[in-house]
Amino acid sequence: MGRRNDHSRQEIREMALQVAEKIVAKEGLQGLNARKIASAIGYSVGSLYIVFENLDDLILQVNARSLDQLYTVISKTEQQCRQPDACLLALGQAYLEFAMEQPQRWRTVFEYQRTKDAEIPSWYRKKIFRLFKLVEKPLLEFMPTLEPHLCAQTARALWGGVHGICILALTGRLEIVGADSVQNLMELLITNYLAGLKNVQGTPCTPEEGTTQECKA
Amino acid sequence: MGRRNDHSRQEIREMALQVAEKIVAKEGLQGLNARKIASAIGYSVGSLYIVFENLDDLILQVNARSLDQLYTVISKTEQQCRQPDACLLALGQAYLEFAMEQPQRWRTVFEYQRTKDAEIPSWYRKKIFRLFKLVEKPLLEFMPTLEPHLCAQTARALWGGVHGICILALTGRLEIVGADSVQNLMELLITNYLAGLKNVQGTPCTPEEGTTQECKA
Repeated sequence: MGRRNDHSRQEIREMALQVAEKIVAKEGLQGLNARKIASAIGYSVGSLYIVFENLDDLILQVNARSLDQLYTVISKTEQQCRQPDACLLALGQAYLEFAMEQPQRWRTVFEYQRTKDAEIPSWYRKKIFRLFKLVEKPLLEFMPTLEPHLCAQTARALWGGVHGICILALTGRLEIVGADSVQNLMELLITNYLAGLKNVQGTPCTPEEGTTQECKA
Repeated sequence: MGRRNDHSRQEIREMALQVAEKIVAKEGLQGLNARKIASAIGYSVGSLYIVFENLDDLILQVNARSLDQLYTVISKTEQQCRQPDACLLALGQAYLEFAMEQPQRWRTVFEYQRTKDAEIPSWYRKKIFRLFKLVEKPLLEFMPTLEPHLCAQTARALWGGVHGICILALTGRLEIVGADSVQNLMELLITNYLAGLKNVQGTPCTPEEGTTQECKA
């Protein structure tokens, strides 16, 4: 490692992020603090706060890199499938695998609470929306009549569900509740949801019970 | 509060659980330790370990009481609906409301990791299975041909999904990802899942793409 002042701001930033990523991957968010990062890269906490606004900013950058890695991993599934339903199952499986292989990084993305009043910057939101596009694309292929807003909401409802099954698997809860396997559950969820989407979108609006979203759209 | 030795084992146990519940509700699991509970009820940590095996046992008891409360709250929805699909939507809504009103207690049920090798006792599992019966019952009314094992798995897949949407709502993630509202998402998930269940169960097995669970059953 170089001496102090040997590095540009950009280099210090990169070194800090790499160290922070490793800490998060190993110990999760609770293991992360500015002093530990500064000490690991041989700079002072003050130097760290020249290149990052605050710890909140640094964690957001770490999470952004996790989102990028998640995107790289799960976007590869596009080449492994032809039918949109098979593509959505492959996406779910890849999402689960990422969560299982990088549990701490994955959980930090979802569990980190920004300091009060801190806005989520638009560049960060774009990374999330880019991920959802991977779900929306096969959804639209599966159901070409979905208008864009409903397609976006349909993708978010499905992925909220996939996410729930992943987190229950990750925390060992599926076994406790007597579920067969995480793959089975995920397949049940995605397959039934898709089959229903076709059914619900194809049936006329029934005002009773208020169970079809078409009635409310 | 009475003096030491004024209480029976059963009373000490009950006092400790009430205090522990309050701490969990306010501060979550990280606020809980044996010394704090003992001090609050005016007994020593040693006395606490006469009535509980260890802290792990105590936390399991606290979670069991949360599961009982959850059962009491969500089982009331049965009286508010007639059609099984409306009943499942009402269950989802009640589950969400419990999570929103008691976020720390709800999260502690799902996030607490027992010490390694600690088995989940059967009386605790029974409480979980009793909750799932509330989902299985309307599912079976909706789809009377579901055989018991598939019904159980179908309930767990759906509730894993509902759980995921709840946790994303609770941690403020739905807004970040551009979802309309938690109610909309939950309705999309449950409605499409149910409509698909009817569709998938009603169609013959197609070995291609492996997307129907019937082929694998």
